[in-house]
Amino acid sequence: MNRLSTDPVALFEAASDGHRLALARLMSIIERGSQEARTLGAHTFSRVGRAHTVGMTGAPGSGKSTLTAALATVVRSIDERMAILAVDPSSPFTGGAILGDRVRMQDHVTDEAIYIRSMATRGHLGGLSLATPQAVRVLDALGWPWVIIETVGVGQIEVDIAGAADTTVVVVNPGWGDAVQANKAGLMEIADIFVINKSDRRGVDDTRRDIQQMLELSSLGDWEPPIVMTVGTEGDGAQELWATIGEHRSYLEQSGELSARRRNRIKAELSKILNWSLEARVQSVLEGPRGAELHEKLESGEIDPYAAAQRLLEIDESD
Amino acid sequence: MNRLSTDPVALFEAASDGHRLALARLMSIIERGSQEARTLGAHTFSRVGRAHTVGMTGAPGSGKSTLTAALATVVRSIDERMAILAVDPSSPFTGGAILGDRVRMQDHVTDEAIYIRSMATRGHLGGLSLATPQAVRVLDALGWPWVIIETVGVGQIEVDIAGAADTTVVVVNPGWGDAVQANKAGLMEIADIFVINKSDRRGVDDTRRDIQQMLELSSLGDWEPPIVMTVGTEGDGAQELWATIGEHRSYLEQSGELSARRRNRIKAELSKILNWSLEARVQSVLEGPRGAELHEKLESGEIDPYAAAQRLLEIDESD
Repeated sequence: MNRLSTDPVALFEAASDGHRLALARLMSIIERGSQEARTLGAHTFSRVGRAHTVGMTGAPGSGKSTLTAALATVVRSIDERMAILAVDPSSPFTGGAILGDRVRMQDHVTDEAIYIRSMATRGHLGGLSLATPQAVRVLDALGWPWVIIETVGVGQIEVDIAGAADTTVVVVNPGWGDAVQANKAGLMEIADIFVINKSDRRGVDDTRRDIQQMLELSSLGDWEPPIVMTVGTEGDGAQELWATIGEHRSYLEQSGELSARRRNRIKAELSKILNWSLEARVQSVLEGPRGAELHEKLESGEIDPYAAAQRLLEIDESD
Repeated sequence: MNRLSTDPVALFEAASDGHRLALARLMSIIERGSQEARTLGAHTFSRVGRAHTVGMTGAPGSGKSTLTAALATVVRSIDERMAILAVDPSSPFTGGAILGDRVRMQDHVTDEAIYIRSMATRGHLGGLSLATPQAVRVLDALGWPWVIIETVGVGQIEVDIAGAADTTVVVVNPGWGDAVQANKAGLMEIADIFVINKSDRRGVDDTRRDIQQMLELSSLGDWEPPIVMTVGTEGDGAQELWATIGEHRSYLEQSGELSARRRNRIKAELSKILNWSLEARVQSVLEGPRGAELHEKLESGEIDPYAAAQRLLEIDESD
């Protein structure tokens, strides 16, 4: 293990043999998003499709990680295996919140059946919203049957990342909290399953009624998002949550929705990659000599910004 | 006036002669953002630079429009002229909030010295964040010395639009309110002047202290944003606000910051136009036969999304 190759394909083979350090290096490659990440992506893409991905999102402090740890305990008890990606788009480094989570999760850290990784941005084009699906594909191709994507927060980026899973679990607490109120609509849109965690606290009935009312107002498909009550710290409700995730998986597979969702997800990913690539290309042209020339003409009033854009687009095409 | 030309340059000439209906049509052309808008943009771009623009933003109900109307009264009393663009990105049509505002502003509607226009999205590329600077340039080229850009709301789009002015006024109320709390950082970044409107209410001292503390923590330039107290409904503080706007204008002109800001703004506008144009182009390729072919290859696992993006970018270049 000390003389581990740096070649992504060799690292992938080593990770296939169970080397955790090799897997950690693969994840770092993806975070950086360099040419090696492209090679790795091309190598793994045809090997994916068996893992079921579960997005977990909720406000900081809602107990997502404790709940994820409780799910991990259930998964172990039935001899299954599970990988957990803790995604923190708000921090370029592994932040305090995640460190706290990892401490709570440490029972599982050295566990062969459980893999836990905190992901952070290290240069990948498009940040974590593009790096995360690549990381999921590596875990999928390595044979992990379940991949949990846990996002920290309920902002649009977090919701987008957690929503790009086969099954999305939204964790709330009795009384909701301000952070959730601000993005309720976004959360409603992605939720396949609602969890009211800390359900031993006051206000749980009101929160349940709130969710039910919102669900009645929504235009739903055939799947009506169930509401599961949990007390993560005690493990209460974790088995029911796991069973509900399984039911949603069966529903997706039998209805044909699973392949439809995955098809849409890969289309959306392609759009995002294209937009980021073009944006990067535009910036590099703008920062070059042609950009400087056009900026001068703009300032002198010689051409307007639409004409300048037109000229740059023509340059771009003839490059 | 009944047989007004539809040619944008002819309309511009008519509007220069004071025809309000011609000006209204010019604004509609910009909202639609068609080829006519390009022609109009090219025609006006070299004629701009004299108007001073003032962005006004604040939460719904903070009293921005009442305050703008009070400013209009001040402006009339000193024989100045002022155009007001009420921008509502949240609604594709003129929404209730603006209708309410217009009723309050109706004293000024038929006033030669004041022009009021509600702007809405009708197809312009990039929506109101790109249509608004074009509308401002038309008013500037027509000789309006002051253009107020009033945005409804404190979301990122509203803040971006109001922040793209020479002088940005952020209107808050005693106690702030939840909507403002959620985007305090965004508001702090753009504010040249703070207004505490409804300053006859409780909590005004706390709010003032809050703002001062935040300003002390910010890394400011030479201009320290003043805090003006107003009661818009009574017109109280409107003259002081007008004087403060004038002071900020003088500061910008004397420090050279005015031209620096305008230079940066036009660069940012060019970037946005390029990004929107490229995004539109990517979408049209993705929706065409080449897009369908690549989507099939993606689904079959033949190529990964990064390789697909690469191929589309090559197609794009050879078009």
